[in-house]
Amino acid sequence: MALETERTTTGWAARDASGILSPYTYSLRHEVVGEVVEVGSTVTKFKVGDTVGVGVLVGCCRNCRPCKADIEQYCNKKIWSYNDVYTDGKPTQGGFAGAMVVDQKFVVKIPEGMAPEQAAPLLCAGLTVYSPLSHFGLTQRGLRGGILGIGGVGHMGVKIAKAMGHHVTVISSSEKKREEAMEHLGADEYVVSSDSSRMQEAADSLDYIIDTVPVFHPLEPYLSLLKLDGKLILMGVINTPLQFLTPVVMLGRKSITGSFIGSMKETEEMLEFCKEKGLSSMIEVVKMDYVNKALERLEKNDVRYRFVVDVAGSKLDQ
Amino acid sequence: MALETERTTTGWAARDASGILSPYTYSLRHEVVGEVVEVGSTVTKFKVGDTVGVGVLVGCCRNCRPCKADIEQYCNKKIWSYNDVYTDGKPTQGGFAGAMVVDQKFVVKIPEGMAPEQAAPLLCAGLTVYSPLSHFGLTQRGLRGGILGIGGVGHMGVKIAKAMGHHVTVISSSEKKREEAMEHLGADEYVVSSDSSRMQEAADSLDYIIDTVPVFHPLEPYLSLLKLDGKLILMGVINTPLQFLTPVVMLGRKSITGSFIGSMKETEEMLEFCKEKGLSSMIEVVKMDYVNKALERLEKNDVRYRFVVDVAGSKLDQ
Repeated sequence: MALETERTTTGWAARDASGILSPYTYSLRHEVVGEVVEVGSTVTKFKVGDTVGVGVLVGCCRNCRPCKADIEQYCNKKIWSYNDVYTDGKPTQGGFAGAMVVDQKFVVKIPEGMAPEQAAPLLCAGLTVYSPLSHFGLTQRGLRGGILGIGGVGHMGVKIAKAMGHHVTVISSSEKKREEAMEHLGADEYVVSSDSSRMQEAADSLDYIIDTVPVFHPLEPYLSLLKLDGKLILMGVINTPLQFLTPVVMLGRKSITGSFIGSMKETEEMLEFCKEKGLSSMIEVVKMDYVNKALERLEKNDVRYRFVVDVAGSKLDQ
Repeated sequence: MALETERTTTGWAARDASGILSPYTYSLRHEVVGEVVEVGSTVTKFKVGDTVGVGVLVGCCRNCRPCKADIEQYCNKKIWSYNDVYTDGKPTQGGFAGAMVVDQKFVVKIPEGMAPEQAAPLLCAGLTVYSPLSHFGLTQRGLRGGILGIGGVGHMGVKIAKAMGHHVTVISSSEKKREEAMEHLGADEYVVSSDSSRMQEAADSLDYIIDTVPVFHPLEPYLSLLKLDGKLILMGVINTPLQFLTPVVMLGRKSITGSFIGSMKETEEMLEFCKEKGLSSMIEVVKMDYVNKALERLEKNDVRYRFVVDVAGSKLDQ
């Protein structure tokens, strides 16, 4: 099925399998929630008026092994929903637009009753945590999980892991986020990584750690917290090599692994899961005229934990 | 069940669950094959005259999670078959002895028809390869495996992977072992890691790599050879930290992992597998009076691929 989209000078027209989505809220440009305003002739999954979401990707090759296995996020020809080039040669702009034309494969229905601004941060941050827990068989109740770093992804990690019924330990470099983690996010324990006696007590206790730290950090202290067969799941794209000693891995059959967002299938599952569990994300809703300020504050890590831009409420010209 | 063994001034006496094993062949001290010459009162698995093997371990706590899950090799109180201290406070000496007293849990029957000198190298090298392939679900026919480094463990890796029906690529730092790998061990491909065009061709092609290199080496080139979800399985105890870039792992959901020998249950499975497949190891059988020379040659990597000492044929005083 060939993708066809066409932009005219005045806007967008949906073709074939694509629909036009009018964003009314988005987070970070790549977590977009909006209303379907037009559908192409072969669109079967959605109808005008549906509240839908678009995440990090808007295209893939459909023929490679990952595409055929419905894990299109690992397709080598994937197209990002922003700062990329679409099959028609035009740039992709994410949620920074009055409307988006998106192939139905990359559109997900927002479950009824879920607030759009709540849904937005799930489309990347939520999915990024849900996907590896699901893929690596870490969804059963009673597991003990660690979340390393509390930011956009980390806060969602605590919430999703708690909703799965896990015992959640937040590991942080300072005391700063203790109250936040324990009282607002619902973590069960909080360990400061420089507190060697607490780290020692926590050794060999976790089934997995979701490591959201986006800068160089030693892995040994965290590998030591893992039980036999435990998994250290990396989420941070770090350009400095990380290091580890082989015996630490081998003698506990531990794995250092990582994953990249999640599939559209997992997006659907994750949204259903979050709806069922009544899971909410911590967000700050702002209008379009606050975007520059929001970007400034983002650079200083000054947000709990995602800005969601209320596009529809910003009265943009469309 | 308490373990009891007793040494007298003239030799060993078996107690309770232990049996005395008279080694007639061993490899590297911790791959011992011998004949049962005496059994304790509660020994049920073996009888006098059985040909049996003992590997790297002779004791464990029996109460921890790994012990209860029959993966006693990960018990924190495991006792090594040599250079360790047994529960009675006496040193363990591996195969360097006229007789060994070993608890039946750590004794395995050598399948009928398997030559003792062939069986010996399987008890550590063979098991070390078999266990992770089995544990990580990498035993089905048709997989594509890589073996990094051809030595005692690596040569067994090629043989076991081939016996599982895998397509096996040997990756080596030089051309030196090409003929050996392809003609004698039966590998399907041979790639020199410094040949960047061949490495490029082989990118994204392997389900797993068994990495036997025991010194520092970069991981990126080998991680790149793995397919999506591929596993790099480390076997080398290396005291210098290894390094990797997180995107290389995350964007292919790859795992860096490793394992440590294998369980007694896996030892039994592995011996049956090797017997069924007619798998043989490449060994050099020597007598006890050659041991010092053998150790010298070992230091120079001058053996294909294991020395097996014919203890029984060395006419030692017992």
